[in-house]
Amino acid sequence: MSLPLLLDHLKKVATLGQVAGIISWDQETMMPEKGATQRAEQTGVLAGLIHQLNTDPRIPEWVAAIDEKEISEFDKANIREATRDYNRSTKVPEDLAQTIAKASAEGQMIWSKAREAGDFQMFAPALEKLVQLKREEAQCLSNRQDNLYDALLDQFEPGAKTETLLPLLEELREPLVDLREKISEKPTSKRFMGHYPASKQLALAEKLAKQLGYDFDAGRIDISTHPFSSGGSGDSRITTRTDEKDPLNCLYSTAHEVGHALYAQGAPEPFLPAAQYCSMGIHESQSRFWENQVSRSRSFAEWLYPEMKSYFPDMNISSADEFYRAVNRVETGFVRTEADEVHYNLHVLLRFELERELISGDLEVKDLEAEWNKRFKKYFGLEVIDVKLGVLQDVHWSVGLFGYFPTYSLGNIYSACLDKAMLIDIPDRDQKIATGNTTQTLNWLRNKIHDKGKLLSAEDLIQSATGTTPSARPLIEYLEDKYGTLYDL
Amino acid sequence: MSLPLLLDHLKKVATLGQVAGIISWDQETMMPEKGATQRAEQTGVLAGLIHQLNTDPRIPEWVAAIDEKEISEFDKANIREATRDYNRSTKVPEDLAQTIAKASAEGQMIWSKAREAGDFQMFAPALEKLVQLKREEAQCLSNRQDNLYDALLDQFEPGAKTETLLPLLEELREPLVDLREKISEKPTSKRFMGHYPASKQLALAEKLAKQLGYDFDAGRIDISTHPFSSGGSGDSRITTRTDEKDPLNCLYSTAHEVGHALYAQGAPEPFLPAAQYCSMGIHESQSRFWENQVSRSRSFAEWLYPEMKSYFPDMNISSADEFYRAVNRVETGFVRTEADEVHYNLHVLLRFELERELISGDLEVKDLEAEWNKRFKKYFGLEVIDVKLGVLQDVHWSVGLFGYFPTYSLGNIYSACLDKAMLIDIPDRDQKIATGNTTQTLNWLRNKIHDKGKLLSAEDLIQSATGTTPSARPLIEYLEDKYGTLYDL
Repeated sequence: MSLPLLLDHLKKVATLGQVAGIISWDQETMMPEKGATQRAEQTGVLAGLIHQLNTDPRIPEWVAAIDEKEISEFDKANIREATRDYNRSTKVPEDLAQTIAKASAEGQMIWSKAREAGDFQMFAPALEKLVQLKREEAQCLSNRQDNLYDALLDQFEPGAKTETLLPLLEELREPLVDLREKISEKPTSKRFMGHYPASKQLALAEKLAKQLGYDFDAGRIDISTHPFSSGGSGDSRITTRTDEKDPLNCLYSTAHEVGHALYAQGAPEPFLPAAQYCSMGIHESQSRFWENQVSRSRSFAEWLYPEMKSYFPDMNISSADEFYRAVNRVETGFVRTEADEVHYNLHVLLRFELERELISGDLEVKDLEAEWNKRFKKYFGLEVIDVKLGVLQDVHWSVGLFGYFPTYSLGNIYSACLDKAMLIDIPDRDQKIATGNTTQTLNWLRNKIHDKGKLLSAEDLIQSATGTTPSARPLIEYLEDKYGTLYDL
Repeated sequence: MSLPLLLDHLKKVATLGQVAGIISWDQETMMPEKGATQRAEQTGVLAGLIHQLNTDPRIPEWVAAIDEKEISEFDKANIREATRDYNRSTKVPEDLAQTIAKASAEGQMIWSKAREAGDFQMFAPALEKLVQLKREEAQCLSNRQDNLYDALLDQFEPGAKTETLLPLLEELREPLVDLREKISEKPTSKRFMGHYPASKQLALAEKLAKQLGYDFDAGRIDISTHPFSSGGSGDSRITTRTDEKDPLNCLYSTAHEVGHALYAQGAPEPFLPAAQYCSMGIHESQSRFWENQVSRSRSFAEWLYPEMKSYFPDMNISSADEFYRAVNRVETGFVRTEADEVHYNLHVLLRFELERELISGDLEVKDLEAEWNKRFKKYFGLEVIDVKLGVLQDVHWSVGLFGYFPTYSLGNIYSACLDKAMLIDIPDRDQKIATGNTTQTLNWLRNKIHDKGKLLSAEDLIQSATGTTPSARPLIEYLEDKYGTLYDL
């Protein structure tokens, strides 16, 4: 009787998590301005209830009474995840959890003001406090006091350790710097110019989403300041945004969020911990795959260019090939979210090293801006003159998200691993993609990744899908090959 | 210490109620089709949690420990309502509550199919079951076994009793039948003809809402099959619908929902039981007031007609006076929701008597269709030939809503009482309304009704606002006066 009781309980937690997701989606897309105060209250009450359910003392009792030999792999994973959530939730005292929640809400507000004012020192005390609190949290969570960062990382990338992640990510640095330097000596490709009406961008975004396999009966697209995806299974929504001078922002943020949403729409039933996404790295691999390996590919340009042309007859790009070059334009810039595939991971590496040092105590918050600027100069060759485009550009640290950044690069690494394996299984994939047919691509990901939910660790999932251990090599090869051809290196 | 603990608890319940309201709004306006299954689950989990909080055994302990002499009127009302909710929630066994919830969900589905098929007998067994279950529920709730109906009524109109409601509502019958008959001998006014684009109707609806005082920073208008209002305070949303052949549907359903929403936006802070709406009758008095006493008035036609004309230059109505006549066209019909002010309460009286007899056992479900048709013929002079426009027209009974219908007529009665008192306090109100200025009107309702939340019973609230006991006389006089002039009686 313990297993059904446990599963019932877990279902309840997961369902409340969905509710929290809906009201958060509503907050970003629909909520009127004056609803903010009551919405904060609602979010807090739900978080409190979820915490209460996650720390229910019956959980370990139920788990102890279950004979693991008699149950499915899926339920074993449910038990593993329930135990994991129970441990994480009970190890951090409620006082500390609430202090962190409050400091995060305040942190974001102060960060937002400091960014507007272009003044890092205005933000420093709040960040200082958050670093201290996250260190305390990590101490509660960690069994190894020598690497607090891992305890934070584990929240987003279960089971990941700095000692394995670091070499994986650092392997990217040299080849990327090399590639970047070579490209910088070549002439850059054409930019999109002109005016692109928002309503047409949205219509095209919808068409693109459908073409990639996004099920509109199980989702919807709305507008928000920062694009995001939310929900799961039959209700997996995405948002996008438009910039009338730049149609690529809407187009590729849509492709990115569709990638997340295809993963969510493909989640196994019923909605229990083992059916949830494997890790943030895997989630990001899905978004990046559809954004880059599919939607920024030379093949897909054959489908996408004529579509673009039909929505924007006046656009200054006049062939599929020119389109392909324009959407893969490489240029060194200050901002991570605007970075091309060549620069993106270099931005992540910078943040990964800085946040590790902040948490370990090797770097003090007061020195963060100077260190950022120094290393940015070293890695990107550019002098940071505006802190808004420097250390204040990302929201993450202001809301206590330490250990999140590396999952972006993991996503890129994993997507390239999947791409390589998929091309062996489906040799004519790119011919299909050139006609807009992505069915086989989606089915492959459904079978290898989506159907698996959280049964395996991220590493094991990539291993099972590709037949080899995750490595940065496929990404390096993919980038060298793609940009080598594009820039005639 | 008991009071803060109790208030904290009540705040939590109210907050979860708001969350339930948001996901229900989302379901009607935004949710993709395939989200239905998980949404049902989410709604169920929230209802369960709310029930659990409402039946927390600490509630009566906290209440017992509070010294009522030392606290505010507002908190006395909070305690009264907490006790009321606790009693209602604990008196009905959870098994029965769940059976009713399930039977209601099924009932609505079967009703919907039976209505489509035009077959009452298809629906009869489900209704039979619901009547039986609601009788059981009423028995649990009632201290007086001789009037089960009151226990159901009390859910929507706290403290109301059939013995006071019946004479109040029945007083309407004779004058209304009389008025109806006199009007039927006169020529009817002009109908709206032509085509009214949905987008223009929505733009006008928004303009109307603003003009009536609806705060768009604390709400929004969307489309749904059946218009409704939801939420409260800083987040009070409404929906509307459009029919391109009939602009009045969108216009007046918007005015109606705006009336509800103005009440909700004016709710006192903080959001605790005493800050919630007084009763369904009072809520309906607000919607009907803005729909009828304001938006269907001769004065407001001076503002509304030119607006209509600017949105629909081709409309077949050519003066404010003709507009006023057209929006107050009286015609005997089968459907309550399409009824004019003269017929509306006669529709309610029919349902009120039938549902009392169903609950008392004086009428059996198998005879309901025949009884409906017989009495409809008697009261309206029309033969019901289509059950879809007869006993199957309303969703209420199919979801177990017995005791709800009379609150519609109470709303009409109360709105006329308020109208009469307001005109004494603001003698030039109608001149103001003729220019579109409704500020004084709204302020009067804010002071007399909205600010009071649930401090008083509906009866006492009307008494305090108008200086006299609620009576049907103001409504009868208002209708006789208005339609006497309109139809030259």
